[in-house]
Amino acid sequence: MRLLKAARREDVDCTPVWFMRQAGRYMPEYRELRKKHPILEICMRPELAAEVTLQPIRRFPGLDAAIIFSDILVLVRPMGIRVEFVKGEGPEIQNPVEGAAEVDALREPDFERELRPVYEAIRRVKAEITVPLLGFAGAPFTLASYLVEGGPSKDYAKTKALMRTPAWPRLMTKLADAVGAHLRFQAKAGADAVQLFDSWAGNLTADQYREHVLPYSRRILDKLPVPTIHFATQSAHLLELLREAGGSVIGVDWRIPLDEAWDRLDGVAVQGNLDPQAMLLPREELLAAVDDVLARAANRPGHIFNLGHGIVPETPMESVQAVIDHVHERTRR
Amino acid sequence: MRLLKAARREDVDCTPVWFMRQAGRYMPEYRELRKKHPILEICMRPELAAEVTLQPIRRFPGLDAAIIFSDILVLVRPMGIRVEFVKGEGPEIQNPVEGAAEVDALREPDFERELRPVYEAIRRVKAEITVPLLGFAGAPFTLASYLVEGGPSKDYAKTKALMRTPAWPRLMTKLADAVGAHLRFQAKAGADAVQLFDSWAGNLTADQYREHVLPYSRRILDKLPVPTIHFATQSAHLLELLREAGGSVIGVDWRIPLDEAWDRLDGVAVQGNLDPQAMLLPREELLAAVDDVLARAANRPGHIFNLGHGIVPETPMESVQAVIDHVHERTRR
Repeated sequence: MRLLKAARREDVDCTPVWFMRQAGRYMPEYRELRKKHPILEICMRPELAAEVTLQPIRRFPGLDAAIIFSDILVLVRPMGIRVEFVKGEGPEIQNPVEGAAEVDALREPDFERELRPVYEAIRRVKAEITVPLLGFAGAPFTLASYLVEGGPSKDYAKTKALMRTPAWPRLMTKLADAVGAHLRFQAKAGADAVQLFDSWAGNLTADQYREHVLPYSRRILDKLPVPTIHFATQSAHLLELLREAGGSVIGVDWRIPLDEAWDRLDGVAVQGNLDPQAMLLPREELLAAVDDVLARAANRPGHIFNLGHGIVPETPMESVQAVIDHVHERTRR
Repeated sequence: MRLLKAARREDVDCTPVWFMRQAGRYMPEYRELRKKHPILEICMRPELAAEVTLQPIRRFPGLDAAIIFSDILVLVRPMGIRVEFVKGEGPEIQNPVEGAAEVDALREPDFERELRPVYEAIRRVKAEITVPLLGFAGAPFTLASYLVEGGPSKDYAKTKALMRTPAWPRLMTKLADAVGAHLRFQAKAGADAVQLFDSWAGNLTADQYREHVLPYSRRILDKLPVPTIHFATQSAHLLELLREAGGSVIGVDWRIPLDEAWDRLDGVAVQGNLDPQAMLLPREELLAAVDDVLARAANRPGHIFNLGHGIVPETPMESVQAVIDHVHERTRR
């Protein structure tokens, strides 16, 4: 359980390592399963979600955590949002939130019924593994942006317009309450820690984040019974505020030198932050890049090795094993 | 000529202001002209490029600079790259650079013949205006990414792969030489200052930027006869390196609080950095956002007011005039 120890900044025998999106398209067994089942079906069928979650655990001895296979938008469907995964395009919201009326229409999920497959998948995985299992959810801002924009956006114009209206705090409160409950149910089902993904927060100024986002993420992170990992991409200008919002661990984007990030994040554990593209390098260069991250972490207590964003589909599987082994070997106390 | 004074960090009567992409789709006269002429045609017909460049100057009294209407890809066409502007999709490279062979095939433009329309447009605009005229070009990394990826990319995987081969320095040297010459010809034609856009540099780690990009941008910025503005988006982790690469002025992305950016950029002038989305706010809130930027600039010598990225098409024209007037009034010495 070295990952949980690291999350609490306790002594570990060596640095724990896992990979964001470690169950995914770079694995042939995942691609095989995806031929037969769309993403949402996998998320909502416990035996499939558990199977995909376990794929990297079986394949890569030494991996220090499993993360439940799911999608951040699974949570908003029982709130009344219609989501479609368009092939090659990613998710599309069929009934975007345009204003107060749609915000007020969002309902509270009946978690134990409507999201039962997620918790059931967690229970199944827990019965099969000895490493910690991570749960996760999208953070309120990232979910709100999806709901308002209908999909990814270049400038988040609609979201930022809504941010200035009285509907925004209502939307964010509803989402924060739903995210918080969803994470607590995941913990109850057996998740040993949870990660909050605020993937799009980097598109806010520090002031926008502080005023319109931070209170809602804090509302979630304050109240969880397990260690929390708080991650955002493109967040070099937001690190202190992410820490202020909460998290036992702050996940650091690959673009930020880890030593500089950690100097700004004193007092918490840190996760990251190899460039996902480094995984495509020949072995020697890849391990040199890993060594660079480790040198910047400099054995500070509380380092969880990971990429600084999700693993890319072109990643060779031998890179994953090489990184796991190398991190463990190099950091053995 | 307060913009040129500010670029040299000299005393000004008030803070100069211009807007990235100030000639563009938010203006009805621009949309009108674009109905009849594709972008590349406007760029390559001096009378049209001059007309579009002048549109915001005519419309907004007080604007402190014109910027020649062009496109960063205009430069690579005479190098042998075929560019198509796909409607609603942006530019697409028909013959992307895949390796050494395509790099070696890139030729040096015959600037005075093949890019004459750009320089001719500059001469025409200069004859009509009293404010400074800015030239511009894409920086070598941003151009190289376009050439290698064929268009925008999420992860720049191909570019980063090429970066590790001996073809990369050859590609970057060719591009840097072409960009440098293009900017010098623009200055010779009458551009009073030039801006180097490294729009995509934010997708690099500091180490990647330092090793594979900085030397080539410096090669350009070192040798120009006019003041230079060096701009990159998503660059919170790169500010010191952008300054090291050069530029009389560093353009700051809207996400970074201007006071923090400037503390890190001691010794140069600074341009920026209102959130382009703030231009959509009601007048009072917009001016409050402007005041916040001005407060962070705190009358340090060398502030050029601008957005922290290009103006968006939804921008109301009265916002542009309101910002110009407000910046001048508030900063009157």
